[in-house]
Amino acid sequence: MFDSSTYQRRRQALRDKVQNGIILILGNNEAPANYPDNTYKFRQDSSFLYFFGHSHPGYAGVMDIEAGEDYFFGNDVDMDDIIWMGPQPSVKDLAAQVGIQKSFPFAQLKEMIGKAVAQGRKVHFLPPYRFDNMMLLEDLTGIRAAIVKKYASVELIKAVVDLRSVKEACEIAEIDLACNIGYEMHTAAMRLCKPGVKEQYIAGVLDGIAASYGSMTSFATILTQHGETLHNHDHSHILEVGRMMLTDAGAERVTNYCSDHTRTVPVGGKFEGRQKDIYNIVLACHDKALEITRPGITYMSVHLEVCKVLAQGLKDLGLMKGNVEEAVAAGAHALFLPHGLGHMMGLDVHDMEDLGQIYVGYDDEIRPSSQFGLASLRMGRRLQEGFVITDEPGCYFIPALIDKWKAEKMHTDFLNFDAIEKFKDFGGIRLEDDILITPEGSRFTGEKRIPITIEEVETIMNE
Amino acid sequence: MFDSSTYQRRRQALRDKVQNGIILILGNNEAPANYPDNTYKFRQDSSFLYFFGHSHPGYAGVMDIEAGEDYFFGNDVDMDDIIWMGPQPSVKDLAAQVGIQKSFPFAQLKEMIGKAVAQGRKVHFLPPYRFDNMMLLEDLTGIRAAIVKKYASVELIKAVVDLRSVKEACEIAEIDLACNIGYEMHTAAMRLCKPGVKEQYIAGVLDGIAASYGSMTSFATILTQHGETLHNHDHSHILEVGRMMLTDAGAERVTNYCSDHTRTVPVGGKFEGRQKDIYNIVLACHDKALEITRPGITYMSVHLEVCKVLAQGLKDLGLMKGNVEEAVAAGAHALFLPHGLGHMMGLDVHDMEDLGQIYVGYDDEIRPSSQFGLASLRMGRRLQEGFVITDEPGCYFIPALIDKWKAEKMHTDFLNFDAIEKFKDFGGIRLEDDILITPEGSRFTGEKRIPITIEEVETIMNE
Repeated sequence: MFDSSTYQRRRQALRDKVQNGIILILGNNEAPANYPDNTYKFRQDSSFLYFFGHSHPGYAGVMDIEAGEDYFFGNDVDMDDIIWMGPQPSVKDLAAQVGIQKSFPFAQLKEMIGKAVAQGRKVHFLPPYRFDNMMLLEDLTGIRAAIVKKYASVELIKAVVDLRSVKEACEIAEIDLACNIGYEMHTAAMRLCKPGVKEQYIAGVLDGIAASYGSMTSFATILTQHGETLHNHDHSHILEVGRMMLTDAGAERVTNYCSDHTRTVPVGGKFEGRQKDIYNIVLACHDKALEITRPGITYMSVHLEVCKVLAQGLKDLGLMKGNVEEAVAAGAHALFLPHGLGHMMGLDVHDMEDLGQIYVGYDDEIRPSSQFGLASLRMGRRLQEGFVITDEPGCYFIPALIDKWKAEKMHTDFLNFDAIEKFKDFGGIRLEDDILITPEGSRFTGEKRIPITIEEVETIMNE
Repeated sequence: MFDSSTYQRRRQALRDKVQNGIILILGNNEAPANYPDNTYKFRQDSSFLYFFGHSHPGYAGVMDIEAGEDYFFGNDVDMDDIIWMGPQPSVKDLAAQVGIQKSFPFAQLKEMIGKAVAQGRKVHFLPPYRFDNMMLLEDLTGIRAAIVKKYASVELIKAVVDLRSVKEACEIAEIDLACNIGYEMHTAAMRLCKPGVKEQYIAGVLDGIAASYGSMTSFATILTQHGETLHNHDHSHILEVGRMMLTDAGAERVTNYCSDHTRTVPVGGKFEGRQKDIYNIVLACHDKALEITRPGITYMSVHLEVCKVLAQGLKDLGLMKGNVEEAVAAGAHALFLPHGLGHMMGLDVHDMEDLGQIYVGYDDEIRPSSQFGLASLRMGRRLQEGFVITDEPGCYFIPALIDKWKAEKMHTDFLNFDAIEKFKDFGGIRLEDDILITPEGSRFTGEKRIPITIEEVETIMNE
């Protein structure tokens, strides 16, 4: 947690941005895995963390715009709680730690919201993504749980996105520390990547590193010799010589600030010929993004420049053909790169994704595309100093997609399907770093950059 | 997964136990952590695993008693799913793997349930514990999500408890394997338990071992030098000489069968005088349970015998006084042991706890107690061959509880508060093994027993 003035300042800024009414920020509760009391590791809602600081189940916060007053809701512990969970600070003390004088038992939240509804005041809330909070919102507002998300306040969403998008110095320091855990995870994965080792073993070690030094992984680790599947959570394979292991993994600090990196390394520690070719194309894409990323540029334009580097590289290898600009405009390269260049990162690994990608990654100026591939770009809008984003180009050979496009004669002006066919056993490569937008351009987050050039990767794998 | 005949046999047995109507078993879905697509590790519902085998989100199963027919519901993947998640078997094939011929898209579940409701047939379902499934049940049955749990079928619950309580050979083999992972976790914890190490570091290593060799931990690891807090999930302390580290942790196999063990070891590797005294009392309690546990005895009577060993030991140390039988009957010993001796274990670490402890641990013969301490006993009923239960006595010095009882002059005939006061800085000890009820008595599960005697523990800690 940061000091109380941080949270007071943030809430003041939010109240200033929202015209009138009351703002309700629900914390998260325990999430049952296989019975009510066997719960997953608690993960607080990120907006609650941002404005009310505390990472513990059973809290809610309210800001009253007109009254200029904030309220903290939660229940004090009883003797039974002390026996099972240990002594806990009072809710009054917790509220004071984030600069709030008025705290109430949780049950009084219903009374406060009910009163506001009865008075015809606007009750602003964010889109719920936990089903218990949907049910709670039904209980508080009378709007059915199944559709309450549609009543989320766009005014509040936009105000929260405005604030959370630009990272404060204290947040950047936390992200740097999260990236240091990420460094440990990825270099451990490289060292363990030997033929005969099960993917699950290495993925488990990464879970352990994240849990030992931080909170947990920032998302379910992708660790696979089938990197052609973009979000492959199957860890059942035994690593084989000739394949590459793609590891897309990150940690959360105890404060829940995230890291998110991807490396793709050859099983056994030595890149072979065509692996080097494709790898260096993806690395050039990654470098292109770093080269041009700066405040004022749209990330959609960075994405498209990167796609041209990819298309040119694949053309040089004989897999693509024709005019590179036209190929990218037509979306032919998306056969190899069906996802976007990156996303915001902060208290969520896809920062604020619960608030709606349309508000986080787009605005009135930059609208999302419906073209296959570009439609998956999560972050398109103009960059500002203090944004933290990922730079994660990839190149994939997805057999089912190749077969489909070939059968449908898709983009035959730009794609050499005969040559592409020979890569159907290749797999996929993705390289990802997290970058902070600085006044001049950008910098990597974290103390040290995870090995990325072919030489760096082969060195650490063969130590 | 086991072979298809296992699931066919189990469903047949369940259909035989339920008189009429249709049985609906909902699988679990992805559980969002901090936004809809950032989900916790998937955990299938254990009853779904038991009767329908597949561990993947988005499935449901129906058994029609009168028709003697079973149905499997789920959605086939599309190209977008293949790109992001890889190729998947068809729902028809999945159904066939568990011996079901009739599979349907998930949306058709509503039609089938709606038809049964319209025909006045009984729709049996288990108590939901995931909020999305409460909302789904509202959609399927028309019963409000917030109260739908009250409409769960007691007939179905009792039938499922009957079947799942007695473990089959294939299940026992899985539990043995889960306990082998538990052995790795606990011996690693003993080796890492040095002064100056952070609890969180060791807890993270255990998470990693569970994830590397199995699925995940079977519950949130308790690892603390404040063992006097029974379910202490705070890992923020640095281990100090003079304290003991209590580790209550288990793994789930990839099949989700569980382990659950507790060991308490001295930071630095050497038990001191009063640590030895209390430790050996708890070990004697544990051994007493092993000595008398056998088919036909009630676990409540085992619990009470163990409490007498505890009270006698504490009396010998001068912490308790008076008649031991009377002290235990009055519940005076519960100051030191406020929880029960154990619980069922299987596909859940507290097996079937979602179905209701009253049905799992009690029956018409053995009813739960309302006395403090004994009321927390999860398993009271008569043991049968094939039950897997935990044996987990403890002895705790909980400052807040000691202060309360002293102030209220509780059980002053049996408690020497002056002597007890001196133990307020002691912490707590718990020792736990998992045992299978055999025809003759019981056996430990797992290949090797985790070191437990003072000599065994000191040896491994000082290797």
